[in-house]
This record gives sequence, structure tokens and C-alpha cells, in this order.
Amino acid sequence: MASTTKEVDVAVIGAGGVGACFLKQLAYLAKSRPSSRIRLCYFAIIDRALCHDDYSDIDIDNALSLLDSDGFDPPQIPDVIKYLSAAPGKVIVVDNTASGLMAASYPEFLKNGISTITPNKKAFSGSYQLCAGGSFVYHETSVGAGMPIISTLNELIETGDQVTLIEGVFSGTMSFLFNSFSPPEGQGGKWSIEVKKAKELGYTEPDPRDDLNGLDVARKITILARLAGLPIESPSAFPVQNLIPKELQTAISSKEFLQKLPDFDHILEKEREEASKVNKVVRFVGKVDIISGEAKVGLKWFEKSHPIANLQGSDNIINFYTKRYGNLPLTIRGAGAGGEVTAMGVTGDLLKILRQI
Amino acid sequence: MASTTKEVDVAVIGAGGVGACFLKQLAYLAKSRPSSRIRLCYFAIIDRALCHDDYSDIDIDNALSLLDSDGFDPPQIPDVIKYLSAAPGKVIVVDNTASGLMAASYPEFLKNGISTITPNKKAFSGSYQLCAGGSFVYHETSVGAGMPIISTLNELIETGDQVTLIEGVFSGTMSFLFNSFSPPEGQGGKWSIEVKKAKELGYTEPDPRDDLNGLDVARKITILARLAGLPIESPSAFPVQNLIPKELQTAISSKEFLQKLPDFDHILEKEREEASKVNKVVRFVGKVDIISGEAKVGLKWFEKSHPIANLQGSDNIINFYTKRYGNLPLTIRGAGAGGEVTAMGVTGDLLKILRQI
Repeated sequence: MASTTKEVDVAVIGAGGVGACFLKQLAYLAKSRPSSRIRLCYFAIIDRALCHDDYSDIDIDNALSLLDSDGFDPPQIPDVIKYLSAAPGKVIVVDNTASGLMAASYPEFLKNGISTITPNKKAFSGSYQLCAGGSFVYHETSVGAGMPIISTLNELIETGDQVTLIEGVFSGTMSFLFNSFSPPEGQGGKWSIEVKKAKELGYTEPDPRDDLNGLDVARKITILARLAGLPIESPSAFPVQNLIPKELQTAISSKEFLQKLPDFDHILEKEREEASKVNKVVRFVGKVDIISGEAKVGLKWFEKSHPIANLQGSDNIINFYTKRYGNLPLTIRGAGAGGEVTAMGVTGDLLKILRQI
Repeated sequence: MASTTKEVDVAVIGAGGVGACFLKQLAYLAKSRPSSRIRLCYFAIIDRALCHDDYSDIDIDNALSLLDSDGFDPPQIPDVIKYLSAAPGKVIVVDNTASGLMAASYPEFLKNGISTITPNKKAFSGSYQLCAGGSFVYHETSVGAGMPIISTLNELIETGDQVTLIEGVFSGTMSFLFNSFSPPEGQGGKWSIEVKKAKELGYTEPDPRDDLNGLDVARKITILARLAGLPIESPSAFPVQNLIPKELQTAISSKEFLQKLPDFDHILEKEREEASKVNKVVRFVGKVDIISGEAKVGLKWFEKSHPIANLQGSDNIINFYTKRYGNLPLTIRGAGAGGEVTAMGVTGDLLKILRQI
């Protein structure tokens, strides 16, 4: 009855917000799954790397301090691939960076039988296959962090349902901003003040313009649209509303941007006022109509009773409209950002691969 | 690079609402997955069965009419197990019945290396292991039909999150009844009329008392609580509010029940009125607090802006409160009943097993 223990060598790149949380979850997994022998065989951040020539375990609990004490300059990626290809177990690379260089290497990893997991949506161009010659690539966390968005979409499609429309709030930052700025009840504050508040609370990227340009949402829509079979070439191949005022889309600093933003508050405040006149609220949504082939990212008005109007905090919400689900969508809602929940999605992907190798 | 084709022999029991839809999806799957060679090797309903001594395929597209023309009296379950155990491929039994006899046989199936999938919540006592000696048992559809409820809960737990509370509307019938009877806006109708309407529209069991007794929700709460690690013995081990008036919990016919129900409308209408006085609506929810160990099924009042107050149609909603997700839950909402979506969950389970065998 006993099945053989699976030997798995995990390489982890990155130890930022998600990466640090993932390490803790990996330590938990290594202890809680007797059916797999999970080893951390390679660990690297941008300027340090750690591994042993004999592939002996790196102590996961102390990986960060070991990196400090025993780490060396990171090898070039071809050398990393060479090292990993010769590992005794099945190899899984977990890339918790936002590095384009790493992302460009995924095909090489896969070709060499190395499975890859990443939350990196910037990198994920969608041209990878889920499974290539015994290796796998999973990126659940590239949309909606730890929520089961991509796995759900894949299952809808694989079982033969027809996904007709996907619509939702895909950015925790945009959710937080508009839930405060245009609440279903009461009065929202000034736009520039909401942006400042969101930045202070850590809900935005270091430069809030990286959220306000809509590109993050456009990337997520691109990923979902492609999975649903729509050949969208890139996040710039469809209309994406940029909430940075045209006059501030210049080479000014983030600080200067925030100083000048109040001069443009009237734009969004006018939009809010017009929506309010017809008893609606303003939200920043991404939408892809799989039937007509149209994708769009930008502001949209919603009835105050609509689920998208009633989000809280920085929650994401994703609605899947499908033939089988009919008029009412399958909806998934919850935290779409944060180290712990994103790391959980990465760990979930690791579990999925562990079951298959 | 080419991996070997997986040979899979599927036995399907039942061809009711879910079963008939599942057959169509199985036919789709058999055609769309070149990596697996999926054969229907056994097909049975309560009084007919079909299989070939040489395990040659049953034509899935015509299985129902073949059952009619070529079927025979169903063999006893031990004989079915004997037949399936000798099949050339990996064997998966899909039990789309609500038969207790079938359910009692799952351990025997598993012992013989036969994986089992079922939407049968009545049968599912929760004492099975997910994986036993190379065979698997999946029952995603026993809660929330095709929605990813059980897989999500399992992933939360397996990755080391702490689920603290699960609360939701788990019955499509109860959802439909209370969304109409106690709407957030406007006035609901008479209780007995809502029940009649729900029955006429096919939203209730043939005898609506099988919904109103709360047992269906209690079974689902039991399944989720156990998966979350709470040793609940049975659906009758915790308080379950029965909406059948005491005086009608007797051996009367379903027709007589519906005739007498209007005499008891004042009970729920009083509850609705009291909730309304504090600006709330009434919903029938299931709840399990994993920390305190308390489970409960029954009426509860919700603020009109609460997601549970704003369901539509017969939608289910399930909120997972966890340590990692913090104050705001991970929420999944959508159709929790219906042949197509339930069959989709069964097919999804089949896909999960296909990936692992």
C-alpha cells in the first residue's frame, strides 16, 4: 500500500514580501508532507546565492541568515540550470522575483525538465505551456494572489464550459482607492488625498503611478483572456484607461507627482458626481468579453447594490460568466495582494506539482 | 518528450440530473484529452447495467440508449468490484446516485485500488481518506456543486493557514426562498407562497420538507468542519433549526403539508418583521467556528449591505475566514445546484485524478 517517497529539490529565488512568507510555508510543507522529501537545494536573492555541491539540504528555517553568512555571488542562469538539472530529485524553481531576466529563462528551465512556479505577472507572457515534457509551470498568483482564479478558469475550460465574460476589480490598490473615494453610502474624500492615504498605508507601489496607469490590471486581463482562448497579443493591445493626468505623465518624481495631483482632482470628482446623479458609484475594472473578443480596462459605473460596488478594503473580486453558470456569475472575492496570501498561492501551486510528479 | 498515454477505465453509476450532464462532459473529455485514453467500461442505473466482458468501450455518446437496448440486471456490488479490479487501465468510479448502498461500498472500491468521485453528500460521512494506496476519493460537489469550495478549503489547510470560521448560504433552495421572502429592498411575500413558488420552479426537492428541515445544510457543514479538522460526529451533533412547523413534522403527505403551511406563516413573518425593525434581513445559514468548535445551522439576521443579504436567485455563498486572510473573508459565490454545474465539479474531480494517476 505504501507509495514511494517523492524526492523534490526546490530552488527559491527572491526573499521579498512574498518570498519571505513562502520560505516559512515551505518549511511547514517540508515537515507536514511525509509523502514527499522536500529539499531546498538552491536559494538566491539579487546579489547572494546559496547551494551545496552535493545537493545537501539548505536549512529552510535559517535560509535567510545562512544566505548572509555562507552566500556567494549568484551564478549566471545557465550555470543555475546546469546545477539544477543534475539534482537527484525532481526540480521545481519558485521565482518570487519580478525579474525579467528570470522570466526569460522559464522556457530553458522547462526544456530541462525543471518545473516553474511564479507570482510574477509582469514576466508572464502567457506563451508558456502548462506542461512541457514532464515539467510544469504554474502561476496562480499572477491574478488575485492566493485566490483560486486561474485554477478555476482552467477547470471551467477543461471541462468544456464556455466562458463568455470575465469582469472584476483586479487591483487591490484600485479597490482601496475607489471603495473610499466613491462609497455606496456617504461621501468620499478628495481624490489626491485618497491616493496619498493609500500610499501611506502601503496599499500602493512605491510610486503610485505604477498602479494608476492601469497596466497591472491590463496584465491580469491579458493572462485570463489568453487562458480563455483569446489571442491577445499584449497588455497594450486593448484600451487601458490611465488615471495619471496627461500633464503628469512626464519625467517628474513621485514626490512631485503627488504634490501636483490635487490640481487634477476635479476630473475624477466630476466623474463621481455624474455617477452619483444616477445613483451609481465609480470603480476601476478590467473586463474581457470572450465572445466579441473585446478587452477593456478603466472606470465603470455600478449600481450601489452591485457586488462590485460593495467591496471592502483592498479586496479583489472576479466574476466568471459562463454558459453553464447562466445569468449569475461564479464569483471569487477576497484579498488580492499581501505576502502571506500570495505565498499561499505559490505553495498551493507547489502542492499541485507535487501531486503530479 | 512524449509521456505515455494514460489508460483510464471509468465506471459511471446514475443518469439523473447530474449523471446525464456528466456523461456529456465525459464524452467531451474523452475527445479533448489526447494524453489520456478514457474508456467508459461500466454504466449502470438503478435497474440496468452495461459492460463488456473484454472491457471494450461503451460508446459514451449513445450510452443511455445502449443501456436501454443492451442493458441487463445490475450485478451485485462485489461482482462490480471484481469486474473493475481486473480492468486493463486505472479505474475510476463516478457515483452520481444518492444511494446509501453505493456509498457504503466506497471503502471497498478504494481498497481495491479503484478511485471514487461523487457529489453524494448524504453518503459522504467524511471518514474516507483522500488517498488510499494509490486510489483517490474526491467529492468537490458535495458542497457548493461545481464551485471550488472543498479544493479551496483543502489548500488553505495544506499550506498551513488557520481556518477560523466558515459561514455561508449552502442551500440553493433556502437562498431562493429567503432572497424572495426577505429582500434587502421592497417587501417579501407570504412564506407559504414563496415555498409553493420555489417548488413549482423546481428549486426544491420533490418534498420541500427535505429542504426545510435544514439537514442538507447540516450535512455540508459537517463535511467542511471535518475537513477543517473539527471532529464533528454527525449532522445531528449540533443545533440545526428545522423550518417545518412542529405541528407538521408528522406523517402527512407533501400535498397536505403545503395545504397546511399557510396556518404557520405568522412564525417566519414575525421573524422577518423583527429583523426589519433593526434594518436587517433574514437568511438561513450554516456556520462553523473552528476555534470554539461550535457548529450551527439556522436563521440569522444580516445588515442589508452584507454580501449574504445580497444574494440573487438560488446562489450559494461561502465565506472562509482565516488567519492569513484576516478580517475580510475569502468568498466564493455562485450556483450551488443544477445538473450542468454539478457535473462540471464531478468532471473537475476526474481531471484532478487523471493528473495524478
